Amino acid sequence: MPTSPSPNRSLRCPACATEYELSLSRVACECGSPLDLVAERRPLPRSLEGRAPGLSRYREAIALADWSLERAYLGAGMTPLVAMGGGLHAKCDFISPTGSFKDRGAAAVAAAALELGAVEVVVDSSGNAAAAVAAHAARAGLRATVVVPEGAPEAKLAQIRAYGAAVMLVRGPRERASQLAMDLSRHEGRYYASHAYNPFFLEGTRSWAFEIFEQLGAAPETAVMPVGNGSLLLGVFAGFAHLVDSGLVTRMPRLVAVQSENCAPLAGRPARPLGHGLYTDGIAISKPVRARAIRDAIVASGGEVVVVSDAEVREARHWLAAAGLWVEPTAAAAWAAVSRPGKSEGHIVVNLGGAGFKCP
Amino acid sequence: MPTSPSPNRSLRCPACATEYELSLSRVACECGSPLDLVAERRPLPRSLEGRAPGLSRYREAIALADWSLERAYLGAGMTPLVAMGGGLHAKCDFISPTGSFKDRGAAAVAAAALELGAVEVVVDSSGNAAAAVAAHAARAGLRATVVVPEGAPEAKLAQIRAYGAAVMLVRGPRERASQLAMDLSRHEGRYYASHAYNPFFLEGTRSWAFEIFEQLGAAPETAVMPVGNGSLLLGVFAGFAHLVDSGLVTRMPRLVAVQSENCAPLAGRPARPLGHGLYTDGIAISKPVRARAIRDAIVASGGEVVVVSDAEVREARHWLAAAGLWVEPTAAAAWAAVSRPGKSEGHIVVNLGGAGFKCP
Repeated sequence: MPTSPSPNRSLRCPACATEYELSLSRVACECGSPLDLVAERRPLPRSLEGRAPGLSRYREAIALADWSLERAYLGAGMTPLVAMGGGLHAKCDFISPTGSFKDRGAAAVAAAALELGAVEVVVDSSGNAAAAVAAHAARAGLRATVVVPEGAPEAKLAQIRAYGAAVMLVRGPRERASQLAMDLSRHEGRYYASHAYNPFFLEGTRSWAFEIFEQLGAAPETAVMPVGNGSLLLGVFAGFAHLVDSGLVTRMPRLVAVQSENCAPLAGRPARPLGHGLYTDGIAISKPVRARAIRDAIVASGGEVVVVSDAEVREARHWLAAAGLWVEPTAAAAWAAVSRPGKSEGHIVVNLGGAGFKCP
Repeated sequence: MPTSPSPNRSLRCPACATEYELSLSRVACECGSPLDLVAERRPLPRSLEGRAPGLSRYREAIALADWSLERAYLGAGMTPLVAMGGGLHAKCDFISPTGSFKDRGAAAVAAAALELGAVEVVVDSSGNAAAAVAAHAARAGLRATVVVPEGAPEAKLAQIRAYGAAVMLVRGPRERASQLAMDLSRHEGRYYASHAYNPFFLEGTRSWAFEIFEQLGAAPETAVMPVGNGSLLLGVFAGFAHLVDSGLVTRMPRLVAVQSENCAPLAGRPARPLGHGLYTDGIAISKPVRARAIRDAIVASGGEVVVVSDAEVREARHWLAAAGLWVEPTAAAAWAAVSRPGKSEGHIVVNLGGAGFKCP
């Protein structure tokens, strides 16, 4: 039961500026673009001491109600920041309820689904987002249907099934899974929980920026993360922008988006023909639906796109494990980007977003 | 390099009261008993706000130096407490660097190894403790040798190997692995990191009590956890005793130790012949070396031993996953104990100590 009014919110298309009322059935603009969330927000206070962990800790900046966030709370967020020497910090988002950073976004989407009266969520994902959404739906008392491209790692499938989600394996390109999930979500009471489309996912990933601010007491000079659909990067950008607006930090960190040589649309490289079984499967997205927003955020932050090879990722994964941090290949891609010799100044925070168990 | 003096510490046998100087090579009493740590401790302050997470957050109560704890820090501890309704809380210790509560103890043992000048740690374990020790040794720059009983789950072996530990698979009863690890650790520069024997492991698991106190603002009425070697229960007992001594809580929670019908030495049931592949392998310990201390702690707290069946554990595991919490069977055993109808008053905290990935 709602115990506090939900904030004023609506949807707007970043491509054609069409506005929509927020509703369960509105998953994209008529023009095909994903939609942005427009919401009232207030400045974050300097000190958050005494507040419980979870997204409601940042309630001024996250457009969801406390009651729904509480019902969807599984322990996402407040992940450790481990100092790795030389100004490098590992943000350990793999230490999370389902083992990936996607829990941040899934917690927000499940809360939104509750607020909008959904009884079921539908999602397509190569694995981590599906597990995160399935778990948070289970927590929130919602059914979940998950469309997974055939070839997703077995460990991820076992996890998704454990949460009781209905799993549909789909052959063919990733885009087919998305289309099927969108179609399924048109039924009454269903909500499309895609991390690529659903704007509430980005409400959740904002928390990454707020946590880093709490942990470092400042914004880092640079934030490095793998980018597929950009659901972390876009939330991080919005989060730091909110910290700037709140007067808590003076500037945005440089956002470094890491992609694989096998699939680097942000670097203008045509994606190679994608089979399954790519080493960095979590970022094998040939056409990110929010590509323009991702590019704008990178440019606005003074950041860049770094393309890494599978050999570099393998080496980074091995190095991290030998330092006690066992992560999946996609997560190690970010570390590969900072392992290269070169200039580095100030605090560099590198996200490690998926547990080693995910692809043992 | 040490930057602060280590606290005064020595070892004492709880069976025959012999005292020993703390050293790398002293792993047990001449009488065969494991040893207790004797250390100076100070009361914990009421508020810990502003302190970083990690064991040094509780430095008054944990007999290790800040410098070593920092070098071994991988993000263990500060795990989420998720309200499950009806006064029940899930303490999500599976949300941890290596996916189990053993990270609390391993962080402390790795710090102790650094303080004592070790270059290598040796450990025997059915899986979770080995992964935790291997990871924290890697973080601390120490080598690790792990003796694993043949038949340990593959997922756990893959993880242990990823951290770069040398793995020795040993056939036969669990005790053989312990004896081999003890023998190996007699070489110079090696430290026996067993969660059953090494008393610093219990310095780490104390943090569970302190976190619960921070999260609830009080001691719970009851704390429920699976017990094999008792490395969590003994630390929790010591931690709450320290909170009582500090004047922060007025009484100890009832400690409920959960064992499997297949191996319940604390309930006076002769252990069935143990093959590998027991459903709750993490607590399949037929002769816990600290059995007497475990029994004393349960009695002193007004607690009890609860024996659960595999069928009950399977049902609890399924129920938890359907609520968004995917844990390994051993962890679900604790939930099975509170799933039975019966009296329950006040806050009951149930530890969920191992991730579902551990035994998919």
